[in-house]
Amino acid sequence: MGVERTDDLGCRAAALRADFLAVRHMTEALAEGLTPEDCMLQSMPDASPVKWHLAHTSWFFEQFVLGPRGIAPVNPAYAALFNSYYVGAGPRHPRLRRGDLSRPSLAEVMAYRQRVTQAVAALLQADADAPSAPLHALVTLGLHHEQQHQELVVTDMKHHFACQPLSPLQEPAPALPAEAPQTMRWLDVSGGLVPIGHDGTGFAFDNEGPRHRVWLEGYALADRLVSETEYLTFMTDGGYARPTLWLSDGWAAREAQGWQAPLHWRHDGEGWRVLTWRGWRRPRADVAVCHVSHYEADAYARWADARLPTEAEWEHAAVTLGADAAARRGALLDDSHRHPMPLKAGVSGLRQMQGDCWQWTSSSYLPYPGYRVPEGTVGEYNGKFMSGQMVLRGASAATPRSHARLSYRNFFPPGARWQFSGIRLARDAGPGAA
Amino acid sequence: MGVERTDDLGCRAAALRADFLAVRHMTEALAEGLTPEDCMLQSMPDASPVKWHLAHTSWFFEQFVLGPRGIAPVNPAYAALFNSYYVGAGPRHPRLRRGDLSRPSLAEVMAYRQRVTQAVAALLQADADAPSAPLHALVTLGLHHEQQHQELVVTDMKHHFACQPLSPLQEPAPALPAEAPQTMRWLDVSGGLVPIGHDGTGFAFDNEGPRHRVWLEGYALADRLVSETEYLTFMTDGGYARPTLWLSDGWAAREAQGWQAPLHWRHDGEGWRVLTWRGWRRPRADVAVCHVSHYEADAYARWADARLPTEAEWEHAAVTLGADAAARRGALLDDSHRHPMPLKAGVSGLRQMQGDCWQWTSSSYLPYPGYRVPEGTVGEYNGKFMSGQMVLRGASAATPRSHARLSYRNFFPPGARWQFSGIRLARDAGPGAA
Amino acid sequence: MGVERTDDLGCRAAALRADFLAVRHMTEALAEGLTPEDCMLQSMPDASPVKWHLAHTSWFFEQFVLGPRGIAPVNPAYAALFNSYYVGAGPRHPRLRRGDLSRPSLAEVMAYRQRVTQAVAALLQADADAPSAPLHALVTLGLHHEQQHQELVVTDMKHHFACQPLSPLQEPAPALPAEAPQTMRWLDVSGGLVPIGHDGTGFAFDNEGPRHRVWLEGYALADRLVSETEYLTFMTDGGYARPTLWLSDGWAAREAQGWQAPLHWRHDGEGWRVLTWRGWRRPRADVAVCHVSHYEADAYARWADARLPTEAEWEHAAVTLGADAAARRGALLDDSHRHPMPLKAGVSGLRQMQGDCWQWTSSSYLPYPGYRVPEGTVGEYNGKFMSGQMVLRGASAATPRSHARLSYRNFFPPGARWQFSGIRLARDAGPGAA
Amino acid sequence: MGVERTDDLGCRAAALRADFLAVRHMTEALAEGLTPEDCMLQSMPDASPVKWHLAHTSWFFEQFVLGPRGIAPVNPAYAALFNSYYVGAGPRHPRLRRGDLSRPSLAEVMAYRQRVTQAVAALLQADADAPSAPLHALVTLGLHHEQQHQELVVTDMKHHFACQPLSPLQEPAPALPAEAPQTMRWLDVSGGLVPIGHDGTGFAFDNEGPRHRVWLEGYALADRLVSETEYLTFMTDGGYARPTLWLSDGWAAREAQGWQAPLHWRHDGEGWRVLTWRGWRRPRADVAVCHVSHYEADAYARWADARLPTEAEWEHAAVTLGADAAARRGALLDDSHRHPMPLKAGVSGLRQMQGDCWQWTSSSYLPYPGYRVPEGTVGEYNGKFMSGQMVLRGASAATPRSHARLSYRNFFPPGARWQFSGIRLARDAGPGAA
Repeated sequence: MGVERTDDLGCRAAALRADFLAVRHMTEALAEGLTPEDCMLQSMPDASPVKWHLAHTSWFFEQFVLGPRGIAPVNPAYAALFNSYYVGAGPRHPRLRRGDLSRPSLAEVMAYRQRVTQAVAALLQADADAPSAPLHALVTLGLHHEQQHQELVVTDMKHHFACQPLSPLQEPAPALPAEAPQTMRWLDVSGGLVPIGHDGTGFAFDNEGPRHRVWLEGYALADRLVSETEYLTFMTDGGYARPTLWLSDGWAAREAQGWQAPLHWRHDGEGWRVLTWRGWRRPRADVAVCHVSHYEADAYARWADARLPTEAEWEHAAVTLGADAAARRGALLDDSHRHPMPLKAGVSGLRQMQGDCWQWTSSSYLPYPGYRVPEGTVGEYNGKFMSGQMVLRGASAATPRSHARLSYRNFFPPGARWQFSGIRLARDAGPGAA
Repeated sequence: MGVERTDDLGCRAAALRADFLAVRHMTEALAEGLTPEDCMLQSMPDASPVKWHLAHTSWFFEQFVLGPRGIAPVNPAYAALFNSYYVGAGPRHPRLRRGDLSRPSLAEVMAYRQRVTQAVAALLQADADAPSAPLHALVTLGLHHEQQHQELVVTDMKHHFACQPLSPLQEPAPALPAEAPQTMRWLDVSGGLVPIGHDGTGFAFDNEGPRHRVWLEGYALADRLVSETEYLTFMTDGGYARPTLWLSDGWAAREAQGWQAPLHWRHDGEGWRVLTWRGWRRPRADVAVCHVSHYEADAYARWADARLPTEAEWEHAAVTLGADAAARRGALLDDSHRHPMPLKAGVSGLRQMQGDCWQWTSSSYLPYPGYRVPEGTVGEYNGKFMSGQMVLRGASAATPRSHARLSYRNFFPPGARWQFSGIRLARDAGPGAA
Repeated sequence: MGVERTDDLGCRAAALRADFLAVRHMTEALAEGLTPEDCMLQSMPDASPVKWHLAHTSWFFEQFVLGPRGIAPVNPAYAALFNSYYVGAGPRHPRLRRGDLSRPSLAEVMAYRQRVTQAVAALLQADADAPSAPLHALVTLGLHHEQQHQELVVTDMKHHFACQPLSPLQEPAPALPAEAPQTMRWLDVSGGLVPIGHDGTGFAFDNEGPRHRVWLEGYALADRLVSETEYLTFMTDGGYARPTLWLSDGWAAREAQGWQAPLHWRHDGEGWRVLTWRGWRRPRADVAVCHVSHYEADAYARWADARLPTEAEWEHAAVTLGADAAARRGALLDDSHRHPMPLKAGVSGLRQMQGDCWQWTSSSYLPYPGYRVPEGTVGEYNGKFMSGQMVLRGASAATPRSHARLSYRNFFPPGARWQFSGIRLARDAGPGAA
Repeated sequence: MGVERTDDLGCRAAALRADFLAVRHMTEALAEGLTPEDCMLQSMPDASPVKWHLAHTSWFFEQFVLGPRGIAPVNPAYAALFNSYYVGAGPRHPRLRRGDLSRPSLAEVMAYRQRVTQAVAALLQADADAPSAPLHALVTLGLHHEQQHQELVVTDMKHHFACQPLSPLQEPAPALPAEAPQTMRWLDVSGGLVPIGHDGTGFAFDNEGPRHRVWLEGYALADRLVSETEYLTFMTDGGYARPTLWLSDGWAAREAQGWQAPLHWRHDGEGWRVLTWRGWRRPRADVAVCHVSHYEADAYARWADARLPTEAEWEHAAVTLGADAAARRGALLDDSHRHPMPLKAGVSGLRQMQGDCWQWTSSSYLPYPGYRVPEGTVGEYNGKFMSGQMVLRGASAATPRSHARLSYRNFFPPGARWQFSGIRLARDAGPGAA
């Protein structure tokens, strides 16, 4: 979204309105080709039905933008149905039962979206002459919130279809040309007292600040993500059978859930196959492994005699090594692949820091020094989840380009696997790092 | 269905074909007004989605009629999806996840029904000249099977909608004229060595035979079912708070599930209300209470200083006292009320033995003496469920008229409440029975 | 116990007192050789610690005999700790946590027993001159209650030890001489209108009456129980792998609990071994299989082209064929084997109807016609459990001789396996029964 | 233990042997007054029976000291029974079933301890002339391991007794003189680049190193722990009823477990009472609140407009402000109170940093930069638990004096409450911190 880069107030209002319409449209475009019945699927508690995402992202604007400005809700009953976790916004329909809503229908939800889109657009239009900073801030927050749910629509829908006996994702994937395999290289990064956190330019979630100083010792970071075939080597080397490679909680999760491979992998008798949005195919040496939990990423790193980076190491390297250059990016939602893509040949330096896969760090999701939860219900957005989760950095093939940032702190419980989450290795500086 | 009453073979074939088409059509008529999303709802493990019922009743004909006659399945994948519990017919989609099928869509399932209906109708047509007894028997079984599922479509859909926050069943029910309340009367029945079980005329399920002799002591049976207001008196007299009224398992179920009233009752602050297919209304003195478990029926009977009848007592009284007379029936599916109706004034004798509510007996569901499970997969229909369930007799407002029989043995676990199950009292003959 | 056979009142009082002291002593004798820690074990929710049995059988006398006669409890806190399921007697310590009581200690419980024994004995002594029928009835009930718990002490302790890593029951059992194997024979029994239930001579539990008439068709009963090696043949013939042999609930239990053999059987690589109170040994052709559930008994019968008897068939045959003759009995608790013993050669007729194993019938545990629950808290003894359980008849190697009766109705849920429960076959009369 | 402070090798060997005997004896002293049945209690999965602790701490010496030196185990079966979580040491008895071991008896376990103590003492004796560093290191590790279990014996036993209906901890506690209440004061600490981690003098667990640099901004730390009455004010101000005070996971835990107060508090109708090892008493203004989870500590801090310290802030303040001075300590195990004691008057500065309560920090339990898991089975001691837990600092009334260290990193899941865990507040430096 261009909104952050526009200075004049009138122009900013117009740009925000354009961004708003584009984001709203994008969400609907993601649901194209799905039937009303597909949009009701909830294959596990963590994954919501697409219809629910479509409605909840509209509820967010009603709750935080339209309601406080006196605009009546489209349907008062939606308040409880489509509130996710905002205790301050009243009661909520149980998360586990979001798939049990046949009413409102998909058509009614689409009409609801339309009404909300028009009402917010009208507000922005009316506001253009005398722009209001709080309105802009809340609409911008609403857009980034909706972009988060765009990513969830993609990952949840993949899970829903993967659990469907008559899934449309059953066929072999069309072949992609193989890129020349590239050896993983270690990039040395010198430490010191470095600034971490969002620098204040453009939008950021509250959890990306305050910007603060962190002391880092020197370290090395892998120039690319771990590939599918590298991960397969870990598997064939007993990766899932050797408890000493695993955290204790991770081994317990592996046993309880019978993990033998990443999520969405399946053995067909001859070998493992990987489910992509285009279908099933063999593991590739040029594509990053995804759908692994923090526990698996940690075990892989231990097996590889390395470790996961801290989030400060990740961010410091990304910022200082220019990881945001377009040529170094991986696949993003805008590319429509909905899966990590082959690593391009002929590009060097730190790659895949934005795109392809989110990358598990070794950092727990905790508040930055000096962090304060914002006042009001919107303060429930981030702070209260700072417990029991691990930080992921980067962006994935399901992340909208305008939503990705080097300071972005994504977070999931260490056992979560249905996101496009992969592995980047790190290690301490030292003789072995030469 | 008139089929049982026709003697000439050619006529029988034509009658069966007409019955077949009528039953198939009736199932589809029950789904009218439901959206594709409604038809996917599964609000609890015991209740299946309507789409699944629509498909499973077609699968039954494919499995037992079309397949053995060399007619290829419409879609081989349906075999596992729509098999209910026939181990002999291969693997089955898990019962708890029937609501997770977005594909095939409702439209595809309706097309599937069409194909199966046409194929069976064609078989019957071709068969008219040289009628085959096995074909007739299996199609007849299929029709009765489908009628059982018609009842489940009604009871399951009521449960699904009752759990929907935006249920169409939320409004107050239109008022019905009240009938004059009628005192419950005891009808004396003399015992002796009496015949029990189906007498061989017309269709019956295997579990209704063999016909055999049972010794009964004299007893008395209530002339009508327990009413909603009578049950309310039990509630206000501490019926749900006095463990000594309850079987031990029943009290445990009551505690675990927090029962305070029948299923589909709700207290609105002023008093209890009852959910019917037409909406909510107050309890009535002229309507039979339904949606009670065996445990509740048993506790009510103990509170009323009576007991539930055995199934032999029930059947013997029904047969000897002419309980099948049309004027004495209660509501059946054909009446379209989908709820017990007010007891008509001016009718005496044993009423509601066919219609309004199924009636819990004190008999466990066990095989009759001499019962043998039929050979083959179709033998899984009844016999293997003869454990842990109680027999209900009669028929309900959701039972097709042509499906009801005095020898019919319905059965459910003692804690089941989502059927139209009510209470008829009995007691031993004796001085107090005068 | 001889008490029932004595007519003179004074003699009866003396006899009851002697019986009382003998039964109390017997319970304590069963705990000999167990450490305080052994007596605290609770290896599953259904099996209580021996210390709890020792205390609960004393609590019973305090609750129903001493308390109502004004004798203060030894320790008021014991009322809740050692009440089993009598809602009318106040709150109860949770059943699942009976193993969590370190206090009172075993020594304190033994002292508690002593005090209660003395108090009841004193009452009986004082009563000798003017005997009171209610006192006699309650003490007699208390003795039979205690004998039931003697059986549980044996079966529970076997389970506790079987779950102990350092169990004293680990060694091979000393060899017993093998009896000549005896072919199972069918004994024909003619039916008719037969009396069932206790005839009023001597003590019986309330659930054994009222005596009433039942119509039976002719049938045949096996002259002995199914043996261990016969059951092994069922196992090797795929008995645990063929769902069509099983009731639906039984198959679900088998899958959920991974049953492959009776409880307390173990495969040692070379073959199956059976755990007895004397240790492990190979299955024998002359010993009745035990520790099978109703589901397994039913599946075995179906596999053997037979069925289980109804409880009326069992009782009628037992009474008319003289099954109570001493020579035909199996092992009882008084024999101290604590396991079924080899079937004696040279004895013909209906054997093992009293001793060796309880025998699953095909009858649900329901009230006899005319049964009324007794008034007061003691009425909770039997009636409220008449749901969801199956009747077993006979007696086992853990049943005291004076506790066994042909009219005795034992009952357990169909999945219970830790009792000495075995299999007797029956079949309908007919050409094949010749 | 004086061992760390001795330089000469021979003296060190003698000192270690003396320490060893003292620690072994101390564990046994903690079990004094407990019956064999008490020592078998396991009131929840996280709390082990005292008998198990007594055995496991001996197994540790057999596994890591005696076995590798060729000394045969006392009983090979103990290896699996008393292994806690060392996958490399073979199979383990399930943690949840540690309370189900009646055998070996308490007496046998005491004899086992004796044999192991003698064997290790003999090794140390033999070693005195030519001391072996690995032996010393392993025995020292074993002693610290045993001291950890001493703390668990105290906290677990309190839990076991609290769940006993006939608990010896039921009486009112004898009155203690009240100290004058002391206002909590903020102590300013300047930040900078500070060293964190054990400095290499004397014993430390591997997780306390490597020593490394951390950047801290200035902050303030409370001079004492939150008191029972302060916590009561939080409770009466709706602390347990306002979700906005809580982390999302914390609120879910509170709801699921019905928390209304710290563990071991009970409302007696008139007010709250606190369970101490001496009995029940009212909350005090001079005693630190304990038995709170991380979630409760975090909610309290938010309510108090403060926060919890990071573990680096805690350690840096402790080291620089002299928190280890004897006068400033709280109660330790050596004081035999087994509960936090009144804060002494007339002492200023940073108190209770060693003793009274462990103090929840805001830091997840993660490896320090450069941390490597030690080779071999002993490497399972700490590293594999670095996931899903929070760090506690300090020491408690159940910690042996010679076991406490300022660099000590204790860790428990954020919902754990049965340890002596309390609350110390922190806040950022700034205008409000003056």
